[in-house]
Amino acid sequence: MARFLKKNKASLHRTPGSVIFVGSQKMDQARVSVMDYDQGDLRELEPKKIDEGERFRKTDTVTWINVDGVHDTELIMEIGRSFDLHPLIMEDIVHTGQRPKVEEHDDCIFLVLKMLRFDEDQEQVIGEQLSMVLGRTFLLTFQEQSSDAFDSVLARIGRQKGRGKGAGIDYLAYALLDTVVDNYIFIIENLGEKVEDLEEEVLSSPSQEVLEKITRYKREMNYIRKAVRPFRELVQQLNFLDSELISDKTDPFLKDMQGLALQSVEIIDTYREMLFDYLNIYNTGVNNRLNEIMKVLTIFSAIFIPLTFIAGVYGTNFTYLPELRYKYSYFVFWVVLVLVALVMVRFFRRRGWL
Amino acid sequence: MARFLKKNKASLHRTPGSVIFVGSQKMDQARVSVMDYDQGDLRELEPKKIDEGERFRKTDTVTWINVDGVHDTELIMEIGRSFDLHPLIMEDIVHTGQRPKVEEHDDCIFLVLKMLRFDEDQEQVIGEQLSMVLGRTFLLTFQEQSSDAFDSVLARIGRQKGRGKGAGIDYLAYALLDTVVDNYIFIIENLGEKVEDLEEEVLSSPSQEVLEKITRYKREMNYIRKAVRPFRELVQQLNFLDSELISDKTDPFLKDMQGLALQSVEIIDTYREMLFDYLNIYNTGVNNRLNEIMKVLTIFSAIFIPLTFIAGVYGTNFTYLPELRYKYSYFVFWVVLVLVALVMVRFFRRRGWL
Amino acid sequence: MARFLKKNKASLHRTPGSVIFVGSQKMDQARVSVMDYDQGDLRELEPKKIDEGERFRKTDTVTWINVDGVHDTELIMEIGRSFDLHPLIMEDIVHTGQRPKVEEHDDCIFLVLKMLRFDEDQEQVIGEQLSMVLGRTFLLTFQEQSSDAFDSVLARIGRQKGRGKGAGIDYLAYALLDTVVDNYIFIIENLGEKVEDLEEEVLSSPSQEVLEKITRYKREMNYIRKAVRPFRELVQQLNFLDSELISDKTDPFLKDMQGLALQSVEIIDTYREMLFDYLNIYNTGVNNRLNEIMKVLTIFSAIFIPLTFIAGVYGTNFTYLPELRYKYSYFVFWVVLVLVALVMVRFFRRRGWL
Amino acid sequence: MARFLKKNKASLHRTPGSVIFVGSQKMDQARVSVMDYDQGDLRELEPKKIDEGERFRKTDTVTWINVDGVHDTELIMEIGRSFDLHPLIMEDIVHTGQRPKVEEHDDCIFLVLKMLRFDEDQEQVIGEQLSMVLGRTFLLTFQEQSSDAFDSVLARIGRQKGRGKGAGIDYLAYALLDTVVDNYIFIIENLGEKVEDLEEEVLSSPSQEVLEKITRYKREMNYIRKAVRPFRELVQQLNFLDSELISDKTDPFLKDMQGLALQSVEIIDTYREMLFDYLNIYNTGVNNRLNEIMKVLTIFSAIFIPLTFIAGVYGTNFTYLPELRYKYSYFVFWVVLVLVALVMVRFFRRRGWL
Amino acid sequence: MARFLKKNKASLHRTPGSVIFVGSQKMDQARVSVMDYDQGDLRELEPKKIDEGERFRKTDTVTWINVDGVHDTELIMEIGRSFDLHPLIMEDIVHTGQRPKVEEHDDCIFLVLKMLRFDEDQEQVIGEQLSMVLGRTFLLTFQEQSSDAFDSVLARIGRQKGRGKGAGIDYLAYALLDTVVDNYIFIIENLGEKVEDLEEEVLSSPSQEVLEKITRYKREMNYIRKAVRPFRELVQQLNFLDSELISDKTDPFLKDMQGLALQSVEIIDTYREMLFDYLNIYNTGVNNRLNEIMKVLTIFSAIFIPLTFIAGVYGTNFTYLPELRYKYSYFVFWVVLVLVALVMVRFFRRRGWL
Repeated sequence: MARFLKKNKASLHRTPGSVIFVGSQKMDQARVSVMDYDQGDLRELEPKKIDEGERFRKTDTVTWINVDGVHDTELIMEIGRSFDLHPLIMEDIVHTGQRPKVEEHDDCIFLVLKMLRFDEDQEQVIGEQLSMVLGRTFLLTFQEQSSDAFDSVLARIGRQKGRGKGAGIDYLAYALLDTVVDNYIFIIENLGEKVEDLEEEVLSSPSQEVLEKITRYKREMNYIRKAVRPFRELVQQLNFLDSELISDKTDPFLKDMQGLALQSVEIIDTYREMLFDYLNIYNTGVNNRLNEIMKVLTIFSAIFIPLTFIAGVYGTNFTYLPELRYKYSYFVFWVVLVLVALVMVRFFRRRGWL
Repeated sequence: MARFLKKNKASLHRTPGSVIFVGSQKMDQARVSVMDYDQGDLRELEPKKIDEGERFRKTDTVTWINVDGVHDTELIMEIGRSFDLHPLIMEDIVHTGQRPKVEEHDDCIFLVLKMLRFDEDQEQVIGEQLSMVLGRTFLLTFQEQSSDAFDSVLARIGRQKGRGKGAGIDYLAYALLDTVVDNYIFIIENLGEKVEDLEEEVLSSPSQEVLEKITRYKREMNYIRKAVRPFRELVQQLNFLDSELISDKTDPFLKDMQGLALQSVEIIDTYREMLFDYLNIYNTGVNNRLNEIMKVLTIFSAIFIPLTFIAGVYGTNFTYLPELRYKYSYFVFWVVLVLVALVMVRFFRRRGWL
Repeated sequence: MARFLKKNKASLHRTPGSVIFVGSQKMDQARVSVMDYDQGDLRELEPKKIDEGERFRKTDTVTWINVDGVHDTELIMEIGRSFDLHPLIMEDIVHTGQRPKVEEHDDCIFLVLKMLRFDEDQEQVIGEQLSMVLGRTFLLTFQEQSSDAFDSVLARIGRQKGRGKGAGIDYLAYALLDTVVDNYIFIIENLGEKVEDLEEEVLSSPSQEVLEKITRYKREMNYIRKAVRPFRELVQQLNFLDSELISDKTDPFLKDMQGLALQSVEIIDTYREMLFDYLNIYNTGVNNRLNEIMKVLTIFSAIFIPLTFIAGVYGTNFTYLPELRYKYSYFVFWVVLVLVALVMVRFFRRRGWL
Repeated sequence: MARFLKKNKASLHRTPGSVIFVGSQKMDQARVSVMDYDQGDLRELEPKKIDEGERFRKTDTVTWINVDGVHDTELIMEIGRSFDLHPLIMEDIVHTGQRPKVEEHDDCIFLVLKMLRFDEDQEQVIGEQLSMVLGRTFLLTFQEQSSDAFDSVLARIGRQKGRGKGAGIDYLAYALLDTVVDNYIFIIENLGEKVEDLEEEVLSSPSQEVLEKITRYKREMNYIRKAVRPFRELVQQLNFLDSELISDKTDPFLKDMQGLALQSVEIIDTYREMLFDYLNIYNTGVNNRLNEIMKVLTIFSAIFIPLTFIAGVYGTNFTYLPELRYKYSYFVFWVVLVLVALVMVRFFRRRGWL
Repeated sequence: MARFLKKNKASLHRTPGSVIFVGSQKMDQARVSVMDYDQGDLRELEPKKIDEGERFRKTDTVTWINVDGVHDTELIMEIGRSFDLHPLIMEDIVHTGQRPKVEEHDDCIFLVLKMLRFDEDQEQVIGEQLSMVLGRTFLLTFQEQSSDAFDSVLARIGRQKGRGKGAGIDYLAYALLDTVVDNYIFIIENLGEKVEDLEEEVLSSPSQEVLEKITRYKREMNYIRKAVRPFRELVQQLNFLDSELISDKTDPFLKDMQGLALQSVEIIDTYREMLFDYLNIYNTGVNNRLNEIMKVLTIFSAIFIPLTFIAGVYGTNFTYLPELRYKYSYFVFWVVLVLVALVMVRFFRRRGWL
């Protein structure tokens, strides 16, 4: 399965702007939750009908509608219609292979990004698409799957008095993005720790397993980078955006986030370089082992080959072979053997091979 | 045959702007088809005379003329004259080795790009030149060969009521480009899947066949990149173009396409990097095998070489060789052989070679 | 432990702007020192209460408050409140894994950077975060640990009459930055000397130890680069900053520093390239050794293998083996052996292997 | 001889602007030819005296003076004086190691570029400097050697009625540049075809000859790139130039040429990458061969070493060696030998080495 | 000794702008020479007192003061004071490890660059700092050591009438820079020739000596690049500088120099790439040799190993060994040996190893 690019055969001859789900369905049933709050009040409700959305759209309170599961294209289209979204936005929401990007529309900002989580079983980073539509009085978020990633933000809204609650849609969106970038850093750090720990192993015992680890970490780093690099551009563009939907008070937060995103990308690249170096060192280590083994073979062979030859000479059956007859021949024979062996050993010592 | 650059010896001493076909003829007979439609009506006709083109040129309806096969320079020149195209446009249409580009002329926009398809027999990506001339009331497209690539667009025009039909020349051109970029992604994904699947093979059994696959995929990725990278620039320029031929309504579609093109290029680069890594891993695997084989050889040699030597010593014919005479000599001899062998084995065990 | 990225699990679900210490505590007790001076007078005092800070804030004298140890979040928050700092500044001060950056706030400039020192025991570069808040009448500096890095600046303030003392907050900040960049260069130079010295060793004796050195130096260079590259950007931004907090008189000093920072980055890259080359040369050296050893083995084997074979032939017990009976057979046998050996030697000489 | 940089020791302590020939003289005698034409008339004349040049300079007709051979500094200076050229232009014309560039002077545009040709004997690309001075009513071209490169342009001027003749100096200059870029493409394509054909050979039989080819092609590609890359910049600058010497009508032609130049550079880089890959694959192939050979050796050695040992045991002369006496001992001996051999073979089979 | 970065421990805790000599003293005694000339007159004088400088500073004549040896900080400070230079300029002059740069001050332009010379004994490029202060009526130059580099310029001033003498300070400065860049090219070319010549050697005999040459040339190329790359930026900045100290007449000369500097950098990079390729080819060559040697060993071993085994079989002392008794056994034995050998040889022939 091409993991770096989503299959979109289904959408090959589609009309641009048509809402066809591309991806693998990860939930049985899409789940919609609605939060509505202003200065004093927070209501959470699982709405029966989405067209209530229209109601929220018109109030001045902060309304956050979160949809878990984007395979239900009917639902998505209903939401899209009630918030009057551009068809291309709706297409991008259900086509879960988008490159992270930010688009400024007439009355909303549309963000697509990847949320990452590390699947411990498969030892693989899984990316899921998060789409955000940031309007004047509402924030729509679409996730591929239910996750507890945003629970902390939710909790804070319920709990907090100061900045969290009074702040508007843009701060809410920032808080969610902040959760995402924190998660990036958490995952990079987790994988990075494994990468840094690998160095010891690469230097001491370059086994096949180490090679597989290098390859796997490299692939995962590539996968993470594929999500984080465009995210950095996204945050940068968000900073440059001169939209009235983003208040000046949120600016320093976004600038802070830009630094984090930049740092993430740089550190991914550092780890990728380290892994590249590891492969080199691994190869070197393999060569060194071969070298060591060859040395032993050489020394064994080189020492015994002439000895065996000498023994062979006195194993010949020549009728006239004078040395065989003397009493001390056998003794001398051994002396010669030992001398030859010693000369060999010295020769290798001098060459620094022993 | 230089696949990355088309032979153009024929055009070596040409006058700039002369219409000489460069490429390999892929059809017997060029085929022209004309579509003409406005809000309510769609007519498709195979025109006898191209100079009818002039007629279409003046009407306000959307006229799309598609030419399959560009080797018929007479035909091309006739079309060119009736639509009053610049000689350089006509030269580029028949010279099928152009770098994808967009040119803004006084009254039209000229696009050259590559359509890709994967030839399963040769396991090779084939690129064919697609030229588009986008005028106020007409769209001319020139393909090297008949293909069904645009059938879906055609079908939609016939079928659809809303966006597809009412929209103008620019949307039609976008729809065709969209087909092209969809095709790029389809091909990248197809090849990418093969590349990702190769990893397993590279790690487990680095054979000559794997090496050839790496080389082939690399070459094909290069070939695709040669088409897609300039396409990305093309779309970017199209976005920056401040032409009245492209309406504001088409802008978001083009911006969307730019994201797709950028993603394609990034993913090609990711795959290229992966293939580069594969070659490294392949080499490492080959080394590892050698290592393993050497190890076995070393152990065998190192164990038997001294044993053979000892046997050789007692195969000598010295008249006075005391050990030969004792009754248990042969038994002791075997004990010594086994002991030496065991010492060798322990030595290798301790070194971790066994 | 992931050295290239600080663990910040603790802050994973934090509210943006919350002051949570991230890092490893390096001192038992945070230490605050306050310097206050104008043209004529220098007072140094260890303040009991930080809210005296507010007092200094209002005077026109140059006030420099240095805090060693940032784990005491209470203290940091107290200082932050009394100087009215933005919550994000305070968060960054205690979160010691920031990417070096400069932020312009309404009434102050905030700088984060890394101070480096070489730990001789671990043979490792240690980075510690230095945060600076540059206000109109005060300079706040926050270090992770007590260090004598700024003593020279302090000494100069006490001693000097001219430029050092009369100059304002911005010059003081520059002087501290200058100490930091001097330290970068000192560390790069120290490590660089080791890198340059390694060349000899790489060429003459490519041992496992050399490989480990290459790997270690590479890692340390990466670590230094991680601090110095963003520092270069920081200085560049500081130069572009059009703030009234930085007087024109300080401009040439900052420009000078920019050159130093750029040079540092370039030289780090040169050393990194050299280390990359070393790894190649190391590999080559290992191969050369193997080559040399193989040569000796080949020559030994190739010479003795046919000799041993000949001896074996005359060790056979065929009843009818005519050569064995002649008187000079044994002599001829030796002549043949020597001749064969000589032919072998000549053969290898001619091939240039001896 | 340093081929990538021309020796200019002679000019080491020259005054800037002094006209000293640097290069190797390629013709005995410099040759000057003058073409003069307007709408209706073409005269070609070999002028006795160059100062007639001044005459042409004042007329309104298109005058093209071509000089083959630039070693005759007297001649060059005479021409320079009669057309009032800047001393630096004249220095650059005779100093044949210039980097391709375009310079706008007060009343002329000065171009230096490299013409390439492939020397089949030396299998080497030869670069020769072409200097062009584009004035209001004249075009001066200086080549190192007589060539037929411009004959086709000449022929066209003589033959053609339309665009070729009526057009001005700028179109003539373009036509010559076009010839040059056509030649670049022709040479790249020629070499590129060889590079593409090499792949087969690299994969199937990695011999020393292949290695030499890779090295040679790489060097030649570098050499071509050295000429083409600055040429691309040159054309780009020519496009940006807002000179009245270049009419608007020539603009689309120059833009077209820019595309060609860009394509050339990209394809050179593709070929360079391919050659880099070839070297990797070559190395891999060499390793694979070694691997194969090692395998055979291992199998042979490993099978015969124990057999020889067993034979050695029964070749010992122990007085008491029971096995020797039994009648079927020799038969059993062979059975054992065969069994041992079979076990060995099975062992290698199971490991996949046979 | 860290050659790529000058030791500046001495200046570690210096006040910015303090004049402390950093580098190795290369002359016993600093030497000052003063040239003063206008249209008609040239005087050269070794001034007793530097404060005469002030006198020259006020006249309208071109005054060039050259100082050889910068270790005498007293002298430098005296000059600095009499020409009223900024302390940072003076610090940079004596701190001989500056990155080449240009700084525009209120009434002068300050240039720092590296002069290179090739030390034939050490086979090493030596860089010395050249500082230039370009004022309205004076030019100050500071070299680390006496050299004859500027003699040609001096000679020209004395000799020439036209451009050299009448021209102002800026042309004089240009003429000196021109000498420097000529020297760069001379050194690059010298080293480049050696690099190009090395190719033959790398391909034919990859010895340890070749490896050391590659390493050395690479290091020297890096060292040269370290001087030339910032020089290119310096010239570029000089071109952009809108200073009244540089007259329009000098502009084309500077533009010309920019081309030379760019070419130098490009060619250095080409040579660096070539050396990188050499290392690859070297490795390949080493592998090829190993391959060749292995082949010989394999063939020898593989042929003799079975022969020796057969001889061993008939060397056993089995009482009942039927083959030994027949009269022609020994003859048959030889026939078998030869047949086995022939089969082996054919086997290797068929595999293409012989």
